[in-house]
Amino acid sequence: MMSTYVVDWQRLRVLCQKLLMTQGMTDEDAFTVADCLVDADLCGVESHGVSRMGIYLKRLQTKVVSSSFNVKIEKEYPASMVINAGNSMGMVAGKYAMKRSIEKARESGCCFTTVNNSNHYGMASYYVRMAAEAGMAGITGTNAPPNIAPWGSHKAYVGTNPIAFAVPKSGNPIILDMAPSVVAMGKVILAAKLGKSIPEGWALTKDGKPTTDPNEGMKGTVVPIGGPKGYGLSLFMDIFSGILSGAQFGPHLNNMWKDFKNPQNVGHFFCAIDISKFVDLDTFKKRVDQMVSEIKALPKNEGVDEIFVPGEIEYRRKAERKRNGILIPDVVYEELKSLCDDNGVEFTL
Amino acid sequence: MMSTYVVDWQRLRVLCQKLLMTQGMTDEDAFTVADCLVDADLCGVESHGVSRMGIYLKRLQTKVVSSSFNVKIEKEYPASMVINAGNSMGMVAGKYAMKRSIEKARESGCCFTTVNNSNHYGMASYYVRMAAEAGMAGITGTNAPPNIAPWGSHKAYVGTNPIAFAVPKSGNPIILDMAPSVVAMGKVILAAKLGKSIPEGWALTKDGKPTTDPNEGMKGTVVPIGGPKGYGLSLFMDIFSGILSGAQFGPHLNNMWKDFKNPQNVGHFFCAIDISKFVDLDTFKKRVDQMVSEIKALPKNEGVDEIFVPGEIEYRRKAERKRNGILIPDVVYEELKSLCDDNGVEFTL
Repeated sequence: MMSTYVVDWQRLRVLCQKLLMTQGMTDEDAFTVADCLVDADLCGVESHGVSRMGIYLKRLQTKVVSSSFNVKIEKEYPASMVINAGNSMGMVAGKYAMKRSIEKARESGCCFTTVNNSNHYGMASYYVRMAAEAGMAGITGTNAPPNIAPWGSHKAYVGTNPIAFAVPKSGNPIILDMAPSVVAMGKVILAAKLGKSIPEGWALTKDGKPTTDPNEGMKGTVVPIGGPKGYGLSLFMDIFSGILSGAQFGPHLNNMWKDFKNPQNVGHFFCAIDISKFVDLDTFKKRVDQMVSEIKALPKNEGVDEIFVPGEIEYRRKAERKRNGILIPDVVYEELKSLCDDNGVEFTL
Repeated sequence: MMSTYVVDWQRLRVLCQKLLMTQGMTDEDAFTVADCLVDADLCGVESHGVSRMGIYLKRLQTKVVSSSFNVKIEKEYPASMVINAGNSMGMVAGKYAMKRSIEKARESGCCFTTVNNSNHYGMASYYVRMAAEAGMAGITGTNAPPNIAPWGSHKAYVGTNPIAFAVPKSGNPIILDMAPSVVAMGKVILAAKLGKSIPEGWALTKDGKPTTDPNEGMKGTVVPIGGPKGYGLSLFMDIFSGILSGAQFGPHLNNMWKDFKNPQNVGHFFCAIDISKFVDLDTFKKRVDQMVSEIKALPKNEGVDEIFVPGEIEYRRKAERKRNGILIPDVVYEELKSLCDDNGVEFTL
């Protein structure tokens, strides 16, 4: 039987921040990582939430990931950057990269930035939201170790490399953050952790057979959306993140869960587009508002209460969870507790 | 019974060019449009090929599309442009926009360009290939009148707005050109034209029911890939193409097939990224080559002869069709013949 605990999001963030600081991260950098994780739990993207604290801490402890801020700009032009993350935490590098991209787009209209020598950067929507909140359109993607097979094979080669977009409107931005697979591998991993089965159509075994066992799915592959289309999207995310940055790609990325000696050398890309250099920002927002209200007023399918735009469900969940607390499964709660014990941090949830 | 004709691609292109010139297009502009159409037929994307000549000519004849080159840059920054197509043919505007984006990316690293007041621009891969052939990464998208329903509704709101990516490697580039639906509406339209049925899972009737009748599908919607993901992708393509450019969006785009009075006001976007500003171009190509050869060497599923990377099948088809000719269905062949008769052009296929 699985039980859950209700925890306050701000206490949770402080706890994660403190845990990360025990490994030598600064206040600010630990906050960035903790904020990104708790944000994922608030949004309902639990696969990228505090359930990752165990593996993040283990990687910092084994020093396969650096706890320092080693992020450096390697190459810079008016509308482009290559950033070397110096094996820092992915969120720290990602936040810096998007922040600088926004600043450069403010001058040039647009900036496309790649990041090499990085690590898992958490929930992609975190970065595009920064752009939208600055009045810009944002695009980001990252690569990850393989768990999607190229169309025609059953052997994983590309990751469930996400692509995310955001634009501002009145109130909360519209944010699409999607894996090119029916579900993110993170959801299969979380199901395994929780001892739950997965629906058919999510994952295939290592021989390419359908499965409902998340442990078999983790050894195999997840199913790409639209068949060759999802595979193609994932491949391009890898080319932009891994090859255009000088990071690793495909099966040459080291496994975050298994390899504690060799850095992963993950790559990401970030693009900020300054809307005001194209059209008046208020007009842009008003037209997006119009689009959203027209979509929400469309006739609904039977059994459907409301039509949503991308990101809307997540913002609604976030507001509700900020009020009422985040439900944490006991296995994750207990893990956080024992991480506190191990690292001499008072457990204050 | 349907029969087919085998035609030479260069003769076909000359014929289309001449037909377009009867409507006042210049040599060069008519060549651009004809080249884009015949290229689609060479690649096997017949839905965007010369089967569109009838509707294009009708739109030029009724002057709902301008035969002139009215393309003007409205706003320009180091890494961005807004281009007003002046209701010119979409291919003419698209080619200009990508060409100028490539030139600007050569200076700035990257350029993101939106185009308003445009028309159907044909096959998206045509433009990203230009970028790849210039040693750049290319991204493009366009909007189109609605034929995908937002998730939860059965009423079309967004088009099967494609997204396309290309990067260079040794030999032919890698090119992904995908509609966010299981198939492009163009394939449903072509099936209707050829009197063929469509597989279940391609389209829904206007009430949201599955159908194998392409005429019912044309009145209804096509099915997005990955459900809400395909809808979300399409929505962002519309925001970038329609709203960030100042063009129309969603159901406010006029219908190319039905409205011969009001311009469509289609929007597109183009992004060129100068690879050499990120990593050494030769190194980039070699690493993409490595990725491709690793993918092609993966174990194959039962019944699979070869594993492909995006665009590879199209390049192979193109080479074969350049050698052996393009198969044109009789209904399209006869239409071209009667278009020649109507416009006083000698039929030379």
